[in-house]
Amino acid sequence: MSKISTFKLEGLVAATFTPFDEDGNIAFSKFEDYCEHLVRNDVNQVYVNGTTGEGMSLTLEERKQVVEKWIEIGKNRLKKIVVQVGALNLHDSLEMVHHAVGAGADAIATVPSLFFRPTSIDSLVEYCKKIAAAAPELPFYYYHLPSVTGVELNMEDFMRAAVHEIPSLVGIKFSSKDLVDMIGILNIPAPHRADGKLNVVFGCDEQLMAAMTLGADGSVGSTCNFMAAVYHRMFGFTSNFNLVEARKEQYRSQQLCRIMYRYGSLWGNNVAALKYLMAMAGPNMGPPRPPMRKATLAEFNQFKSEISDLGFFDWLK
Amino acid sequence: MSKISTFKLEGLVAATFTPFDEDGNIAFSKFEDYCEHLVRNDVNQVYVNGTTGEGMSLTLEERKQVVEKWIEIGKNRLKKIVVQVGALNLHDSLEMVHHAVGAGADAIATVPSLFFRPTSIDSLVEYCKKIAAAAPELPFYYYHLPSVTGVELNMEDFMRAAVHEIPSLVGIKFSSKDLVDMIGILNIPAPHRADGKLNVVFGCDEQLMAAMTLGADGSVGSTCNFMAAVYHRMFGFTSNFNLVEARKEQYRSQQLCRIMYRYGSLWGNNVAALKYLMAMAGPNMGPPRPPMRKATLAEFNQFKSEISDLGFFDWLK
Amino acid sequence: MSKISTFKLEGLVAATFTPFDEDGNIAFSKFEDYCEHLVRNDVNQVYVNGTTGEGMSLTLEERKQVVEKWIEIGKNRLKKIVVQVGALNLHDSLEMVHHAVGAGADAIATVPSLFFRPTSIDSLVEYCKKIAAAAPELPFYYYHLPSVTGVELNMEDFMRAAVHEIPSLVGIKFSSKDLVDMIGILNIPAPHRADGKLNVVFGCDEQLMAAMTLGADGSVGSTCNFMAAVYHRMFGFTSNFNLVEARKEQYRSQQLCRIMYRYGSLWGNNVAALKYLMAMAGPNMGPPRPPMRKATLAEFNQFKSEISDLGFFDWLK
Amino acid sequence: MSKISTFKLEGLVAATFTPFDEDGNIAFSKFEDYCEHLVRNDVNQVYVNGTTGEGMSLTLEERKQVVEKWIEIGKNRLKKIVVQVGALNLHDSLEMVHHAVGAGADAIATVPSLFFRPTSIDSLVEYCKKIAAAAPELPFYYYHLPSVTGVELNMEDFMRAAVHEIPSLVGIKFSSKDLVDMIGILNIPAPHRADGKLNVVFGCDEQLMAAMTLGADGSVGSTCNFMAAVYHRMFGFTSNFNLVEARKEQYRSQQLCRIMYRYGSLWGNNVAALKYLMAMAGPNMGPPRPPMRKATLAEFNQFKSEISDLGFFDWLK
Repeated sequence: MSKISTFKLEGLVAATFTPFDEDGNIAFSKFEDYCEHLVRNDVNQVYVNGTTGEGMSLTLEERKQVVEKWIEIGKNRLKKIVVQVGALNLHDSLEMVHHAVGAGADAIATVPSLFFRPTSIDSLVEYCKKIAAAAPELPFYYYHLPSVTGVELNMEDFMRAAVHEIPSLVGIKFSSKDLVDMIGILNIPAPHRADGKLNVVFGCDEQLMAAMTLGADGSVGSTCNFMAAVYHRMFGFTSNFNLVEARKEQYRSQQLCRIMYRYGSLWGNNVAALKYLMAMAGPNMGPPRPPMRKATLAEFNQFKSEISDLGFFDWLK
Repeated sequence: MSKISTFKLEGLVAATFTPFDEDGNIAFSKFEDYCEHLVRNDVNQVYVNGTTGEGMSLTLEERKQVVEKWIEIGKNRLKKIVVQVGALNLHDSLEMVHHAVGAGADAIATVPSLFFRPTSIDSLVEYCKKIAAAAPELPFYYYHLPSVTGVELNMEDFMRAAVHEIPSLVGIKFSSKDLVDMIGILNIPAPHRADGKLNVVFGCDEQLMAAMTLGADGSVGSTCNFMAAVYHRMFGFTSNFNLVEARKEQYRSQQLCRIMYRYGSLWGNNVAALKYLMAMAGPNMGPPRPPMRKATLAEFNQFKSEISDLGFFDWLK
Repeated sequence: MSKISTFKLEGLVAATFTPFDEDGNIAFSKFEDYCEHLVRNDVNQVYVNGTTGEGMSLTLEERKQVVEKWIEIGKNRLKKIVVQVGALNLHDSLEMVHHAVGAGADAIATVPSLFFRPTSIDSLVEYCKKIAAAAPELPFYYYHLPSVTGVELNMEDFMRAAVHEIPSLVGIKFSSKDLVDMIGILNIPAPHRADGKLNVVFGCDEQLMAAMTLGADGSVGSTCNFMAAVYHRMFGFTSNFNLVEARKEQYRSQQLCRIMYRYGSLWGNNVAALKYLMAMAGPNMGPPRPPMRKATLAEFNQFKSEISDLGFFDWLK
Repeated sequence: MSKISTFKLEGLVAATFTPFDEDGNIAFSKFEDYCEHLVRNDVNQVYVNGTTGEGMSLTLEERKQVVEKWIEIGKNRLKKIVVQVGALNLHDSLEMVHHAVGAGADAIATVPSLFFRPTSIDSLVEYCKKIAAAAPELPFYYYHLPSVTGVELNMEDFMRAAVHEIPSLVGIKFSSKDLVDMIGILNIPAPHRADGKLNVVFGCDEQLMAAMTLGADGSVGSTCNFMAAVYHRMFGFTSNFNLVEARKEQYRSQQLCRIMYRYGSLWGNNVAALKYLMAMAGPNMGPPRPPMRKATLAEFNQFKSEISDLGFFDWLK
């Protein structure tokens, strides 16, 4: 069976950070440790150049280098490497697709164009079709991130149309809290898929348990970079129908995210706070790029103190 | 133990319709049948004068009559009668509270003031405190309906503050898809409650399964008026950890709601479509009040045909 | 010619405050002074029970009393008394219309229903038609206040349709910054009007000069309650094509409004801040009703100091 | 005096289109005619690679070529060439700035970063400071386009802070209908400017008259590409205090824009409709790039017919 028929993201997929040095240049020397850290925490699938990876703050050249590095390092250690190819416009995205194919990515995902945005189901289908068609052998995912892209179309309607128009459509990274919309997608017939279903991976870690219960296949998240143990336990409890204990793990994640968003908002975006959390629990990813900024020492200490009071460092044991 | 310590809504609570005759007057003769229909479908708790009941399209006098009718008819047949007392402003809401107390309601719930809206956690707490204080013996619920009221404050923050300020606070009717916010509420310590927890009832039928899995106690919904069987089955499957079958019931609800919203939008509000669904599956509730309008015959036939194609009439067996 | 053909609001119309005593009851004894203050400042038209008047925080009984009081006191001193009859729903609004007719109002205006909102041009026309028809002899105005009512329909489309459906339609109180929409309304043919045009009064004092230049007939505003002098000068300069000086007056208004909104947001709504400004420059209107709150002493002093630094007290000379 | 002290856009500035051939490649052969058309219509200032120019649909390489072409062709014919350097992120924008300096642009303007957006006044100031600092000799404009960029910060607050932090700050292209905010900017002291004021150019053609009356210096617009005559007349009437006639010209523009937006929405963005208007009144700019699409023949005929009925072709005489 073809890759498109059977490709499936399941369980935890890390939306990877891009490590920078203090000058804001990509710190290629850090990828090795980072990959090791993920594997040690039983995270074997990655989603590269997405939001967490500040893909949109990199030049196209840099994005290519990041992809190449992940493939070089992850080839024999990771099970799946998905490359986010979405960019400001179609031309730039196509350049990313062609590179992903050549570099050996396992699958691609894309946001819609970010300035002139698709404003109808039809135009979004047309847009994605052009991108997917540039890599017909690679599994294609739509990256639904309405709070950032401003493309707030109904995804059930979109996927129902897209499944007929885009032969390589495998699924969606669904980064919205609107589970009603997700329920619809889970029930779309996908005749070109071995199991007849689209592959749905959820992007809001702080309500992941709900998405999984409804039938999502896994999570493409940022917090599993530094607290995979919490989610592994949550999945375990859910499998054993121990909802009471599973909820406790989900609540940990929810509490952490609330603090993370509060500080992230202070520093320009939640990725800034996520990078500090990563440094506390694993390899240091360096500062974020503008328009995000570094924390002041006082802010950082306060942040760390709140995180610590939550019990964060105990959760990781 | 006091009522406030132990009062709890669980499972299905019907947000009741208000039946009208063709002239738009309240059809008091229809309450008997309606109540019978609910009980026959194993729905024994009601939420009166909320959105589904067009409470905000009634005069205060009419609202009182509706409350009295429900208490007269439901006294020995229903387990719990909750009265929504929220109105345009504080003065009108207080009038509704005093009436609810005298009439013998089991609990009250309120939306915030609808023109001058509370704009901070503090002002919302103060506002609710005034309403709850007018009926200190009655369990108090906040009715969170941000898409209509425009009060989009964080409910976890609100409930954390309110639990200290409002002695009769029992819980929340949570009519938002933002489950992250709901997770927080489920974990707020409530020392004045027998089980130490707030009572959370969910208001979006089309993703109810997700809310229940996360720990919500029940549903205050409109669609259980005419398809309680679907939710009873869903709850049963979930209790038996048969998620696959439970999801099928949830998907039925989600499909129905999509059609219902589409036609509701045509007729001015989804309540208009809900009333037609009720008439198809139970007693006729009559037309909605303006600004909603009746369907044309062609629209109605098209609506019924879509609902029927979905299998709606088979679900009810 | 009929009143509907010739009725026209022009220049300054005060959206009146409702004076309260310290307990929040209507202070009827203050109306006399208040009316005197307006007339002394050459403001001879009033708009009663609108936003500034906290009409939506009054019971229907109280609203009637306020209307009667204004008509009693203003009969021989004011040129025009417009009554805002909009309420939570159609039934309550109709009660207000009937009262306005009996009490002798000169014209009526209405917001749309506030909970179940008209969601299409058609439903808004139907809704207004029902209200206007209850007082066919009274000039009818639609009160466009999208930021509060949530009814964000295109007003040009609405008025183009309404002019054919509502025989008593005279004009619109346009409380939105969207001047593009207003330009359209100014150009709608109104054959039932003596001058062939709809009467457009603007509701955003802080950009009033722009609206007047484009052709608006006047202003229904709150700040002319306490700084009519500024607008009288602005109108004077504009008439003499002295745009440079006119802009200075508009800038004064804009600066004041910025401070007013900032403090209003602290106190629950800008009406709270407006009432303090009124007390500084004229008769004391008392505190606002909940969910607004009073200023603390420190807040009030800070507010007064900022207003004073702006030169507010010099502008009034 | 330095260029930054005296540089000023006044009157009409064309936000230029980028001409494409049928394959979507830049049609360099069309620039000559296009420039000629503008000059013939007395439009001598251009704003390159903005929204109208689909700058965000071009690759960085293409953007550079467009800049070079405009400077080559316009050097001796145009008075001012402003280059929009904003891009997806800081790195890409800096590349555009360096190119603009080398190519000989007269001034630069920038939108904020488009994926990770500045979320506070401070971060927006910091972001712009980095861009302006890369071309300290070039007049710097902020391009305020909140409906597209999602950066909805108060511009008065921003400009008050920026004027102290960015030595080359000359002004703002203000593409929002919020004239209250613009009034504030017009009154910010700018000690480094010869006239002590910031240069404000307005971006909503359909309410330009209002902005000019309040003191804006000119317009950076799209519709002056094909109907400059309307605005020249409008300016003339305004100068002569003939507001009645000036309003007629503004109304023409407003009517046209309403139709243009309606069709633009059908075709993916208003630029698609603008390009057709341009082709009707001047040189053909070719189709837009995806996600916009071409009109069908029936759509185009309908569009042209509506435009023609409006009198468009007569206005241009």
